[in-house]
Amino acid sequence: MLHSAEQLHTFTRLFFEKTGCSSDDAATIADVFIAAELRGIGSHGLIRISDHYKLWKAGRLNTSPQIKITRDTPSTAVVDGDNAPGMLPAVFCMNIAIEKAKACGTGWVSCNNSNHFGIAGYYAMMALEHDMIGICLTNANPLVAPTFSVSRLLGTNPIAVAVPAGSQPPFVADFATTPIARGKLEVFVKKGEETLFGYVQNKDGEPTNDPDILRKGGAMLPLGGDREHGSHKGYCLGAVVDIFSAMLSGAGFGPFVPPSVAYLPLPPEGNGVGTGHFFGAMRIDAFREKEEFKAAMDCWIETFRNAKSTQGQPQVLIPGDIEREHELISKEKGIQLIPAVIGELNEIAGETGIEMRL
Amino acid sequence: MLHSAEQLHTFTRLFFEKTGCSSDDAATIADVFIAAELRGIGSHGLIRISDHYKLWKAGRLNTSPQIKITRDTPSTAVVDGDNAPGMLPAVFCMNIAIEKAKACGTGWVSCNNSNHFGIAGYYAMMALEHDMIGICLTNANPLVAPTFSVSRLLGTNPIAVAVPAGSQPPFVADFATTPIARGKLEVFVKKGEETLFGYVQNKDGEPTNDPDILRKGGAMLPLGGDREHGSHKGYCLGAVVDIFSAMLSGAGFGPFVPPSVAYLPLPPEGNGVGTGHFFGAMRIDAFREKEEFKAAMDCWIETFRNAKSTQGQPQVLIPGDIEREHELISKEKGIQLIPAVIGELNEIAGETGIEMRL
Repeated sequence: MLHSAEQLHTFTRLFFEKTGCSSDDAATIADVFIAAELRGIGSHGLIRISDHYKLWKAGRLNTSPQIKITRDTPSTAVVDGDNAPGMLPAVFCMNIAIEKAKACGTGWVSCNNSNHFGIAGYYAMMALEHDMIGICLTNANPLVAPTFSVSRLLGTNPIAVAVPAGSQPPFVADFATTPIARGKLEVFVKKGEETLFGYVQNKDGEPTNDPDILRKGGAMLPLGGDREHGSHKGYCLGAVVDIFSAMLSGAGFGPFVPPSVAYLPLPPEGNGVGTGHFFGAMRIDAFREKEEFKAAMDCWIETFRNAKSTQGQPQVLIPGDIEREHELISKEKGIQLIPAVIGELNEIAGETGIEMRL
Repeated sequence: MLHSAEQLHTFTRLFFEKTGCSSDDAATIADVFIAAELRGIGSHGLIRISDHYKLWKAGRLNTSPQIKITRDTPSTAVVDGDNAPGMLPAVFCMNIAIEKAKACGTGWVSCNNSNHFGIAGYYAMMALEHDMIGICLTNANPLVAPTFSVSRLLGTNPIAVAVPAGSQPPFVADFATTPIARGKLEVFVKKGEETLFGYVQNKDGEPTNDPDILRKGGAMLPLGGDREHGSHKGYCLGAVVDIFSAMLSGAGFGPFVPPSVAYLPLPPEGNGVGTGHFFGAMRIDAFREKEEFKAAMDCWIETFRNAKSTQGQPQVLIPGDIEREHELISKEKGIQLIPAVIGELNEIAGETGIEMRL
């Protein structure tokens, strides 16, 4: 069943208003949810409203937050997210990064006391209209075992980088520092299929192809998969994301990042506060004439896109191509939600007194 | 055969003086070479002096450069490396990043017209004594085929991040954005062994385990190996390194980065100038009280190091552990050079009139 972006935006906004968010805040959160749906990243879309609802009911989300800067310099800031839905501190932080970049070339903001913020790419892309490169990192609840570790110590800690171009669409990379997203493991489970090796390990740290292994004490592997294929590099990346997001801000780190679902307990206190994020904005003309940079980026993109592609692949992809294509189609034809998600959302609508149904 | 760090430092310094470097510049370059040897990264050590010698003889290295800032803002700069050996612009740039971070919290420098600079970790680590996080990226001559590309469009484009701690040694990540280093392919060739799959592809973009495939028109693969294991994420990383290093500075990008060996031709003009690097420094106390940060990093490191390790592994490693261990041992026992390298260096000594022999 297809819904328009406007329809889903309204529903999401109404839901967050019902949880106590201001109209403006609810609209901001809805923007991020709908961007995820439009860009084809349904795993970070409306399927997660139920998690937010349960966290809110459990008193674990603050929907009338006082988000504030707690420390800053000309090019940096630390922000206290006041336990808000992560989209609110994230937009706040990225705007600060952009303002700082306007004033002194770049801006860098580390955020504590936040929560799951949806797709990292959304915030990185906020920099584009200002002719800046945008960067966004976040830690996440622990699912990943570093190289040689039996335990889950890191989240899938994504990295997003958005770079403006000229006549070409922007370069937008947004990826977890694991070989595949957690959501893809669920797809294997539902299909009753085994995974490839290199995605997960069992509770003893041994290779396995069981997609359901997270429920059996197993862990996801860092990008690279095993040591021979460079998993220590994926571990380094996830660690750097964790350090920039949590060590610079005082957020919960590694195994102490709070879960984004209410059925898992909060981590023990004393290891930082909430989920951590890190944002960056670099003004293009702090480095190079804007038009010169954009022409060079166009050339970069064309060089890569027009390189000879492997058999069966129409072309070499530029990061962001797939999501942009998906967005064009979804805007025209609508967004496909899973029937179970629609049912869940309509139930939540009933419970919270939203009159709209999907 | 073992040599002391001092002995190899002197030799390297004398060699670069013979090529026309000032005493100070030659000593700076030698510092980076010896750091590579001490840290066990011999692939970036004295084995490369011969390449520098040949590039210099071919008139492709400028040993009396005028390295200068061509543009800057309070938190950024662009530097023209004047075609110097890469270590000189790199140290120059990292010092600027550190000075800018002192003044406004962070400093970010993109460098064009440079050359191979040795180990990226050296420059990232320069930030540590200033209680800053150091970052260093560089592009490199094209050996890597992005996901779905037949052609080599990116270098092994490394990422280095150094983070100070308190009583624990610093966190130092320094890794190529490929599963293995190019040098390791050579080891397989010399041993007459096949590689694992996931490292390289053949000239048609098909998987292969032939370590000698680069000489047959093949390419290295990005971190992740194949699309199913996230090679598009490794491609994103290599691309971001290239964009920050070359697009922000105007250096040669992707397939147009000049080779670090004289037997390969220079790329066609008009696609940027020389090799590009990117440097960052973030002052810890621009984000958080220094002592608080360092205590938190100690806790991070201890948490990871003391996590349960997989069978046969004594512990979970912290990035930088292996190199630091190697440095301790090499400082005490000496540095092991390959006999062929010693022969090569003594030959160069003879040709250039260095009186010292190794």
